[in-house]
Amino acid sequence: MIVSLKRGAEVSKVLRELTARGLWVSSLQGSADQPALLLVAPHSAQVDPAELGGIDGVAEVAVAKSAHPRVAAQPERLDIGGVPIGKGAPAVWMCGPCSIESEAHALETAQRLRPLGVTFLRGGAYKPRTSPYAFQGHGAVALGWMRRAADATGMKVVTEALGEEHVAPVAEHADMIQVGSRNMQSYALLKAIGRAAKPVLLKRGMAATLEEWLLAGEYLLASGAPSVVFCERGIRSFDATTRNLLDLGAVALLAHVYRQPIVVDPSHAAGRRDVIAPLARAALAAGASGLMIETHAEPGRALSDGPQAVPLTDLCRLLAELGSAAGGVS
Amino acid sequence: MIVSLKRGAEVSKVLRELTARGLWVSSLQGSADQPALLLVAPHSAQVDPAELGGIDGVAEVAVAKSAHPRVAAQPERLDIGGVPIGKGAPAVWMCGPCSIESEAHALETAQRLRPLGVTFLRGGAYKPRTSPYAFQGHGAVALGWMRRAADATGMKVVTEALGEEHVAPVAEHADMIQVGSRNMQSYALLKAIGRAAKPVLLKRGMAATLEEWLLAGEYLLASGAPSVVFCERGIRSFDATTRNLLDLGAVALLAHVYRQPIVVDPSHAAGRRDVIAPLARAALAAGASGLMIETHAEPGRALSDGPQAVPLTDLCRLLAELGSAAGGVS
Amino acid sequence: MIVSLKRGAEVSKVLRELTARGLWVSSLQGSADQPALLLVAPHSAQVDPAELGGIDGVAEVAVAKSAHPRVAAQPERLDIGGVPIGKGAPAVWMCGPCSIESEAHALETAQRLRPLGVTFLRGGAYKPRTSPYAFQGHGAVALGWMRRAADATGMKVVTEALGEEHVAPVAEHADMIQVGSRNMQSYALLKAIGRAAKPVLLKRGMAATLEEWLLAGEYLLASGAPSVVFCERGIRSFDATTRNLLDLGAVALLAHVYRQPIVVDPSHAAGRRDVIAPLARAALAAGASGLMIETHAEPGRALSDGPQAVPLTDLCRLLAELGSAAGGVS
Amino acid sequence: MIVSLKRGAEVSKVLRELTARGLWVSSLQGSADQPALLLVAPHSAQVDPAELGGIDGVAEVAVAKSAHPRVAAQPERLDIGGVPIGKGAPAVWMCGPCSIESEAHALETAQRLRPLGVTFLRGGAYKPRTSPYAFQGHGAVALGWMRRAADATGMKVVTEALGEEHVAPVAEHADMIQVGSRNMQSYALLKAIGRAAKPVLLKRGMAATLEEWLLAGEYLLASGAPSVVFCERGIRSFDATTRNLLDLGAVALLAHVYRQPIVVDPSHAAGRRDVIAPLARAALAAGASGLMIETHAEPGRALSDGPQAVPLTDLCRLLAELGSAAGGVS
Repeated sequence: MIVSLKRGAEVSKVLRELTARGLWVSSLQGSADQPALLLVAPHSAQVDPAELGGIDGVAEVAVAKSAHPRVAAQPERLDIGGVPIGKGAPAVWMCGPCSIESEAHALETAQRLRPLGVTFLRGGAYKPRTSPYAFQGHGAVALGWMRRAADATGMKVVTEALGEEHVAPVAEHADMIQVGSRNMQSYALLKAIGRAAKPVLLKRGMAATLEEWLLAGEYLLASGAPSVVFCERGIRSFDATTRNLLDLGAVALLAHVYRQPIVVDPSHAAGRRDVIAPLARAALAAGASGLMIETHAEPGRALSDGPQAVPLTDLCRLLAELGSAAGGVS
Repeated sequence: MIVSLKRGAEVSKVLRELTARGLWVSSLQGSADQPALLLVAPHSAQVDPAELGGIDGVAEVAVAKSAHPRVAAQPERLDIGGVPIGKGAPAVWMCGPCSIESEAHALETAQRLRPLGVTFLRGGAYKPRTSPYAFQGHGAVALGWMRRAADATGMKVVTEALGEEHVAPVAEHADMIQVGSRNMQSYALLKAIGRAAKPVLLKRGMAATLEEWLLAGEYLLASGAPSVVFCERGIRSFDATTRNLLDLGAVALLAHVYRQPIVVDPSHAAGRRDVIAPLARAALAAGASGLMIETHAEPGRALSDGPQAVPLTDLCRLLAELGSAAGGVS
Repeated sequence: MIVSLKRGAEVSKVLRELTARGLWVSSLQGSADQPALLLVAPHSAQVDPAELGGIDGVAEVAVAKSAHPRVAAQPERLDIGGVPIGKGAPAVWMCGPCSIESEAHALETAQRLRPLGVTFLRGGAYKPRTSPYAFQGHGAVALGWMRRAADATGMKVVTEALGEEHVAPVAEHADMIQVGSRNMQSYALLKAIGRAAKPVLLKRGMAATLEEWLLAGEYLLASGAPSVVFCERGIRSFDATTRNLLDLGAVALLAHVYRQPIVVDPSHAAGRRDVIAPLARAALAAGASGLMIETHAEPGRALSDGPQAVPLTDLCRLLAELGSAAGGVS
Repeated sequence: MIVSLKRGAEVSKVLRELTARGLWVSSLQGSADQPALLLVAPHSAQVDPAELGGIDGVAEVAVAKSAHPRVAAQPERLDIGGVPIGKGAPAVWMCGPCSIESEAHALETAQRLRPLGVTFLRGGAYKPRTSPYAFQGHGAVALGWMRRAADATGMKVVTEALGEEHVAPVAEHADMIQVGSRNMQSYALLKAIGRAAKPVLLKRGMAATLEEWLLAGEYLLASGAPSVVFCERGIRSFDATTRNLLDLGAVALLAHVYRQPIVVDPSHAAGRRDVIAPLARAALAAGASGLMIETHAEPGRALSDGPQAVPLTDLCRLLAELGSAAGGVS
């Protein structure tokens, strides 16, 4: 944002007014006889340009056109397969194992999660693994396992489409298609997923700026997705004591400034079970509309990411506590 | 941590047991006839080595000696000039302007903060400014202003010593000496501050690992400081929409795993007033024992960092809300 | 790497031997009556475990199995469509515009590049753009333009496959398939590209560790790619004065320690034309086997990334200078 | 930089002209009847505002005043105790051990370095160690050892002042005072060092932006330092395979755009001996005017940082090779 001054305006007085509204401003000077231009830094509080235009001495307020108008136009509360998510809705739980391991595993998990108030069954059919030699998920067959388990228990399904070929089967079986962190800027995939016309859960890339993340959402909406829920799952960091770095500042911004429904995945963010509970609480306090938490009946036997899975027995206690803090789930 | 196996142990079974406890493990092999060594990654959940030693097939568990024994030995609840901070104590508020601007300013601020439950008056006498031409603080005289304002209102004083020459005057006037982010690894300064034998508030450096931060605390304790309270204030980030990036994962780790009293400064972390409230709530939920929040009666007239200061009138509402969420301040 | 000591070994003496070889070592202790285990940090110089095994007092040296055996087995000098790249081969230039704009544009560019010693014509048919509303490339038709321009001038073609649907047409027209930064961990795409059985240029993801990058190469080789050339193009940074941060330490490691052919793209790394020449020189000095440089006859009219394109007239001078520094291209 | 357009100017035509000059531009719009303002991103090529002012359709070019006028006014070639450094001068070598271990050690090192063309003896008297329990340097006495060794061999001394108390003794014994990475923003220390009126070697902080680094130089010059030589030594990174991440883009910018003499320390950047040589070559190619390299006769016996020290016998070969690449040292 750039604020132009009227000729003869008292610069220090205008600066005071801008500072008073939470704006970080630097002054740029052209020819000596022209008033300075005031450049507002992006880490300033959000204000209505019209309000600034009314300040004594201000000639004009120039702004960049939103690069993501469809995202900006999303309602603050979305409906995902009948489940409301966002402003005013109870916090949504999306839980399940990293990988779906069998039909029985899916069903048993769903049966234990539903009574805890978990509305979305999450789990991987196609798994993005760092090594080509690691277990890559059971594939298409696991989608059916999830669907049937969800139907049997009255839950919804959210699962990842890792490539364009997976979009059709995932769209057929899931209520919400997940875009993984590693694919946040895989634009051909985003377009294919958008064309499937299903709600999307869009995880943030490991080094994505907020603007890039919102633009990835714009790709989805522009390609046909009816709605996009953003999901913060931790970004890359220099500190090795957590698997990733949970950016709750981004969550607060998306929830309170950009007014987007946002879900937080503390499991991937921390990678360590001993801080998932406080980070889950913190995510809700920062403005998250839901949480995605990995769980497993026997983490030691999980086919992937067992170390970060919350044992199902512990999840019960955690969700009960979070539910009362968040205002309760239905 | 390295787990050695007994000869003939079933590796996969031991791995299952370690995974079940939240450990990320990789296997290293020496000569073919020796059992593998299992290396535990630092982002694993904390477990007692003795517990691992009892797993069937485990020969031995080797651990690194703590590099910061004095920090590890700190009690979970500290007493700072009569104010308890940490486990079981009510959340502590440390509020005030970026710079102390006059004796009247200090007193008026203290008089408005005390009734809100704020126990520590914070404010800068010596200011670390990125530019040598920016206002550098009023210096020693401002220390007296703060002290008298605090005494008149029953508050404590926390303020930064920017250099070794400031240590004596700050120690004389303050209840707690602040080490700023930019000086977290200024070891000569840490030693000088430690020798002053006052409680210290140690802000995290902008790119400091948790280990480096704890070691900076160790410098202070080893040099004579009676206690160290850690303060997370945001680290460097690639995203320009906030001033810094608040790392609440580090807060959760310090509070719940390292068991250290920790304070969060959402003002510097965000730099923008419109997300300070949700980040303050999130910090408490993550395990913070207190908050440091910049405030000013008229942010537009602040001599530094006005854009991030919460107007005093808004602070009242914020602290009331936080207080009830946190269990209330005395 | 973990070094086990013999019972009774003098720890300090072994540590001296390891340090002398450039190893950063920390000591972990199990039960008091067992010798310490010495853990070697990953930023240590590469040494042969067998050499360490010969040090007096060392019982055993345990190492992790390579996670990317196919990458490790690549020869140091590859043949890409008849062009040698890697150890002992002259430095390879890959030049062209960000986007291919027309058949005439492709041909004219190739005709001007070939005499400069440029062997690979680079250019985008499918463009990964941050915004869905930006020019997305001319698509399949541009592949034919590139192919015919290259054939007419005796050049090779390298261009990006952005999605699985592009793999077949790109494989048909190009000599080398490029994987873009944003897709470095799009595993379904990597597998599809590998199955095309063409040489691949694998750009590093914006926050990818070296290990993740090598593993992405392993995906390609395991899926059928005959060879992978790594390409460093800058990673995410907190400093806004360059578009990305060129990591020549990674280049030195890949070239001199991992012994992989590696190409550097200083255009995307810097984003600014005024430092492309020194960074190109530095890349060759660090061990790059080739350079990818964006160029345009009229950067002001480029359909994308014009600001970072070196004007064709300047490229001539730059390549002449680099060629003599690098030992000359044929 | 902000470019204002004349009323009625053809925006696309002006954008073309700016792009042609290497500028990344975004357009901001105020009221509909006013021409757009064009905001130039900081990663654009440097251009003279006056040149832009001459473009058809441009009304005015507003720029921010330099925040570091004294740095900007430094000559491109400095004289440090009789040794020229910077534009046109031969590359300068600054070598020596991490810590100075004894008077004999200092003298022997100097006697072996001088014939290699090394003009500056570097070494630590006061050492900034991450742990308070690590060797902290021999202190003041080591300054005398260095001074006498340098005098005996015709060398200069550069060594770090870690705290304000060290400034006087370091200034007395050294030709150039080093500011370490961890102290780059210790403003009280910078002022104290500036007042000593000696040339300064200013290492970059681990997460310092270029602007913050230049401003730290401005602190020194504004406080009395006659000259500042910048030193890049690697910044914090998420990749564990090198100790730090060498930012040669910053070196190219400082050398070729900001026109400052700059030295590179590949030893700390890499932390591993096996890539110091290629990174040293790359640094010179990027525009470095000198190199600081840690060396030791017997790295295994070094009191600190032995793993990254180049054995003295290898340094000979390295400097000979670099010398001929760099144009030779006198």
